[in-house]
Amino acid sequence: MPETTRTPRKTPRAPAATAAIAGLPSNGRVRAVIDQVLPAVDAGRFAVKRVVGDAVAIRAHCFTDGHDVLRVVLRWRREDDDNTHEVPMKPLGNDVWSASFVPPEVGRYRYTVIAWVDPFESWRHEMVRRVDPDDIRIAARVGAQEISACARRAGGADRKALDAWAGALQAMAADARAEVRALKALALDDVQAQRARAYPDRSLATEHPIELPLVADRERARFSSWYELFPRSSSPTPGRHGTFKDVVARLPAIAAMGFDVLYFPPIHPIGREQRKGRNNALVAQADDVGSPWAIGAAEGGHKSILPALGKPADFLNLVKKARALGIDVAMDIAFQCAPDHPYVKQHPQWFRWRPDGTVQYAENPPKKYQDIYPFNFETDDWQALWIELKSVFEHWIGEGVTIFRVDNPHTKSFAFWEWVIGEIKRDHPETIFLAEAFTRPKVMHRLAKLGFSQSYTYFTWRNHKHELQEYFTELASGPGKDYFRPNAWPNTPDILHEQLQTGESAVYMTRLVLAATLAASYGIYGPAYELREYRPRDPGGEEYLDSEKYQLRHWNHDDPGSLAPFITRINRIRRENPALQQDGSLRFLPVDNDQLLAYAKTSEDGSNVIVTVVNLDPHQAHSGWLQLDPASIQVDPQQAFQMHDLLSNQRFSWRGAHHYVRLDPHSVPAHVFAVRRRLRDERDFDYYL
Amino acid sequence: MPETTRTPRKTPRAPAATAAIAGLPSNGRVRAVIDQVLPAVDAGRFAVKRVVGDAVAIRAHCFTDGHDVLRVVLRWRREDDDNTHEVPMKPLGNDVWSASFVPPEVGRYRYTVIAWVDPFESWRHEMVRRVDPDDIRIAARVGAQEISACARRAGGADRKALDAWAGALQAMAADARAEVRALKALALDDVQAQRARAYPDRSLATEHPIELPLVADRERARFSSWYELFPRSSSPTPGRHGTFKDVVARLPAIAAMGFDVLYFPPIHPIGREQRKGRNNALVAQADDVGSPWAIGAAEGGHKSILPALGKPADFLNLVKKARALGIDVAMDIAFQCAPDHPYVKQHPQWFRWRPDGTVQYAENPPKKYQDIYPFNFETDDWQALWIELKSVFEHWIGEGVTIFRVDNPHTKSFAFWEWVIGEIKRDHPETIFLAEAFTRPKVMHRLAKLGFSQSYTYFTWRNHKHELQEYFTELASGPGKDYFRPNAWPNTPDILHEQLQTGESAVYMTRLVLAATLAASYGIYGPAYELREYRPRDPGGEEYLDSEKYQLRHWNHDDPGSLAPFITRINRIRRENPALQQDGSLRFLPVDNDQLLAYAKTSEDGSNVIVTVVNLDPHQAHSGWLQLDPASIQVDPQQAFQMHDLLSNQRFSWRGAHHYVRLDPHSVPAHVFAVRRRLRDERDFDYYL
Repeated sequence: MPETTRTPRKTPRAPAATAAIAGLPSNGRVRAVIDQVLPAVDAGRFAVKRVVGDAVAIRAHCFTDGHDVLRVVLRWRREDDDNTHEVPMKPLGNDVWSASFVPPEVGRYRYTVIAWVDPFESWRHEMVRRVDPDDIRIAARVGAQEISACARRAGGADRKALDAWAGALQAMAADARAEVRALKALALDDVQAQRARAYPDRSLATEHPIELPLVADRERARFSSWYELFPRSSSPTPGRHGTFKDVVARLPAIAAMGFDVLYFPPIHPIGREQRKGRNNALVAQADDVGSPWAIGAAEGGHKSILPALGKPADFLNLVKKARALGIDVAMDIAFQCAPDHPYVKQHPQWFRWRPDGTVQYAENPPKKYQDIYPFNFETDDWQALWIELKSVFEHWIGEGVTIFRVDNPHTKSFAFWEWVIGEIKRDHPETIFLAEAFTRPKVMHRLAKLGFSQSYTYFTWRNHKHELQEYFTELASGPGKDYFRPNAWPNTPDILHEQLQTGESAVYMTRLVLAATLAASYGIYGPAYELREYRPRDPGGEEYLDSEKYQLRHWNHDDPGSLAPFITRINRIRRENPALQQDGSLRFLPVDNDQLLAYAKTSEDGSNVIVTVVNLDPHQAHSGWLQLDPASIQVDPQQAFQMHDLLSNQRFSWRGAHHYVRLDPHSVPAHVFAVRRRLRDERDFDYYL
Repeated sequence: MPETTRTPRKTPRAPAATAAIAGLPSNGRVRAVIDQVLPAVDAGRFAVKRVVGDAVAIRAHCFTDGHDVLRVVLRWRREDDDNTHEVPMKPLGNDVWSASFVPPEVGRYRYTVIAWVDPFESWRHEMVRRVDPDDIRIAARVGAQEISACARRAGGADRKALDAWAGALQAMAADARAEVRALKALALDDVQAQRARAYPDRSLATEHPIELPLVADRERARFSSWYELFPRSSSPTPGRHGTFKDVVARLPAIAAMGFDVLYFPPIHPIGREQRKGRNNALVAQADDVGSPWAIGAAEGGHKSILPALGKPADFLNLVKKARALGIDVAMDIAFQCAPDHPYVKQHPQWFRWRPDGTVQYAENPPKKYQDIYPFNFETDDWQALWIELKSVFEHWIGEGVTIFRVDNPHTKSFAFWEWVIGEIKRDHPETIFLAEAFTRPKVMHRLAKLGFSQSYTYFTWRNHKHELQEYFTELASGPGKDYFRPNAWPNTPDILHEQLQTGESAVYMTRLVLAATLAASYGIYGPAYELREYRPRDPGGEEYLDSEKYQLRHWNHDDPGSLAPFITRINRIRRENPALQQDGSLRFLPVDNDQLLAYAKTSEDGSNVIVTVVNLDPHQAHSGWLQLDPASIQVDPQQAFQMHDLLSNQRFSWRGAHHYVRLDPHSVPAHVFAVRRRLRDERDFDYYL
């Protein structure tokens, strides 16, 4: 069989799980068993996530009764295309079969596995081991029958050749003078066998009853570096409301830092009713700009732009300029309304009305959010609501947006998300959705399963060594590995973690290195991070003082203490080292010091290995012995290998499994080592030229 | 809602997994999510196994968007009965809900979970936390609406009471002079709330799309002690062919040892063609009795009895006498034929014929089994073959057999086993099937999934501490825990393990204690074990010399070296300690000596804890420190507790977490401790009276 063939699909989509119990099955002669096909998310209820161009490795657990030989193929197709492709699967031992395919385009795929007991291969497998001359003669005649059967399934020249082979085998088996050794050699002819294999008898094939779904995203779904800013604070003139044009002026600096996703909080008209003032004051002053998440006013709602930021053409121009620099603009989708959002008058049935004639605003008693009306997803008019919300995505996709950061998806209907993401990705498969759900684990996992491409994580609150090890081991190797893509943020406009409230450079560097090397996707709430904004609004709280959420801010990008150069280096290391562009290979390395965290990541092909060591204590130098087995990184245990610190550009020669490390937070609190296996590695000399 | 209600079933059996993607779902207002229902085997493809009378604990992962309150119920039914039972599920935290049900009879069951966002409970949950008087007044009016809705779903007195409550709440909320505290108290009235809860609005309920299957077996499927013997060797007179009557005479001794399953190798007529001689000789002598697994001769096949053993009435009598002693007779089912089995002439199409006109005998080249013809499960006449093989089970069930030990099921069609076990257990749910498959792990697991009640294990070849720990941890806690019930055998007629070939008493005791305390089901190939038959046929092999498989043997049950008293004690300990009657609770305990293996098992209710310590070295005494955290066995860490060795009847006082143990193989190589938490435990004094 050729490596990949195209055959028409005939898989029934649903299993008839218990048909056998009610009576005889339709064909009891089928003997091949397919016990598992992996990966699978909830037995195919949800799609596995992969990236276009990456090989998707499929494994199947297949066997049959007795000693007969199986053949197994992987069959895959685009979900919207009935033409299927087959790839032979190879046995890895222990009844595990393996094959892979590379999704050629973004979109949804389906895959399943087919196995059959192969009479020709079974016969050949036994013939190899036969020694008794009488057995060999009888077996040769059995083989001639199998080969004739292959010939009947073949056409043209192959049919003739196989018939001739069968005839020769039959004749020699019947000839008592023929040498048994020659007979066995003829029976086991490799060229003929290869020809016969192209015409297998698949009439008794077993097909895995589920065609498993898979989403192939573009690469940025797996590997992305996010930068969040408030456009209204991007003006170079203090006190002036920033505009999209101001953001365009910042683009080269953002691109130079190495970010590839630029994310804005909502850019829509901001409600005036119940508007919040600075520092979340219940009553706004006349010049207060309000929270961008209180969406909608007389000027428009979720499809409109706040006039102070610019016109639609300005936004379009920004998206275009960003793209030219390799940056995607990500839109914030917050499905909620200010009291003066046009929806409230146009579609009152989409909100929950109280007996006093007011709308039920968002609350979690005794907390109240008077400036925000949630949608009522139990409304009788839910179809219209869903279709309208879907049109919000479509509107911005029309404006060039391909990435959406969804605000609090866990407070909206899960069924809605599954539907809307499915619909949008069917028509625009390049779209990426990031779920901003800081909530309970099972809820976050469900959102990822039902379609979100990336998910915010608990990283911000994982600070100690054991916490980080446990959490990222779960992310890299737990059940979510096939559907939950972490996006790690050291800060957000809502979260100034206590650790950052000292403003110490070492903490900001440490948390950045951790986010950027533990997770293939990470992000920072930008100006506030690189300029180390550290003042909390309330002692013990995580809100920023004078937060941009409620007022304009001005940022001094020329501050000599800016972390921009450090961030630039980190992002360059990420871009140049495939090991850091995926999550699955992460493994932690033992270090005998609780303040030192070490871990290795390896690229898919094994050629690129990055070992990161971080000092978690921002105040003191720490040293310790790190354990790294050379064999685990394909290094000869007898040879020295070079560890090239891509942060400091220092080089260390290591040998064996135990290595001394020391990190002083007063210089750089981390090593990001590239393993140089040969001293004259091609990347070794030109790296920092 | 009452604890258990009966409602008509309306579950659709199959999920419409991806309907939402093709367009709007049928009811987008449904907001409750059921992410997982556990236990489940391959997402419901196969049944979970439990035992009648044991509570089946079901967990579900359920949540909804936002802060609304869910109600969740477990729904279960007999598979053949549309009447369902509902049990409210309780939240355990972390979105896990729990409930259980007790299958009242043996048979197959189905269970699923239903969840809904409950407007009444959501309202009440918020009302509890409200403090603002205006909010409370408005919320009371909202509550009156919810209560009225409950009233509309109620009838009779409840309807009246709920209407009255709603009216009172409405009136008090409208009365500006009414005290807010009184209004809140009226709204939160517990008695009224309990009444309202009985009439929930389930119109937007989510139902888990799969009704998961469960098999409730009788207790012996979980907990059984097997004794294997060859009836033909049971004659008290050396040289005379044993009979069923001879076995009847042995029954009291077997019952006294504490066994509850008596298993015979095949009892059918033995083929004469190609009969094997003593020690597997290719040519039998005239007086050789042949292998019982070469089934079938002129006298009959799988439904017949070897005349030398007795008549059908003798077998019936034996089954009856055994049952009176609490013993089930287990029948060996080996679906293969001697060349002179009547099937070969009557149904030649059930065998694979070779071009020379002979039948393809069993072989695994270059090995040959000329005395055995396998069935061809790919025969065109497979329906007739399956129905005939099923009738073999039915025949012996008619003779009172309820347990079948199936020989090499992995060399017969898996689809056949799934069908035949399903059919037999539907009509005879008390039937137990033991799979004798010593083969690759995935194959053994598949056989267990598709219906075998118990499975032979690798125990025989797991001898070192780490091997035993790893293997039994996997059996107790791995994915097989819901469907793979281990049955551990220290020996079988096919396996005289190298360890046993010294004949040392300590080895025989050690392996017996391990099998009987690690696994809830275990067995021995009896006379050869208790009389320590240790001579191998070939050096380095595992076959017995002068094996009963090919000749008559005579056993001296009066041998003073017999292990019968030791076995009797072990089986009594098993019978009296529920901790040893299940597999799930096993956990190994650290001991700082590689020759000492220690583990604890705890009964379902926690009241019975057995700690076993075994010296794996048959030659030397070993001592070490065993770690047992008192809290893990519900013992106050400050108090001493008594460890009562049920083998030696010695008592030890332990305190804290570290305990010294010492075992000398020259006396008894094991402790089987019962933990006595109180010094005056009720079982303490009467145990060995």
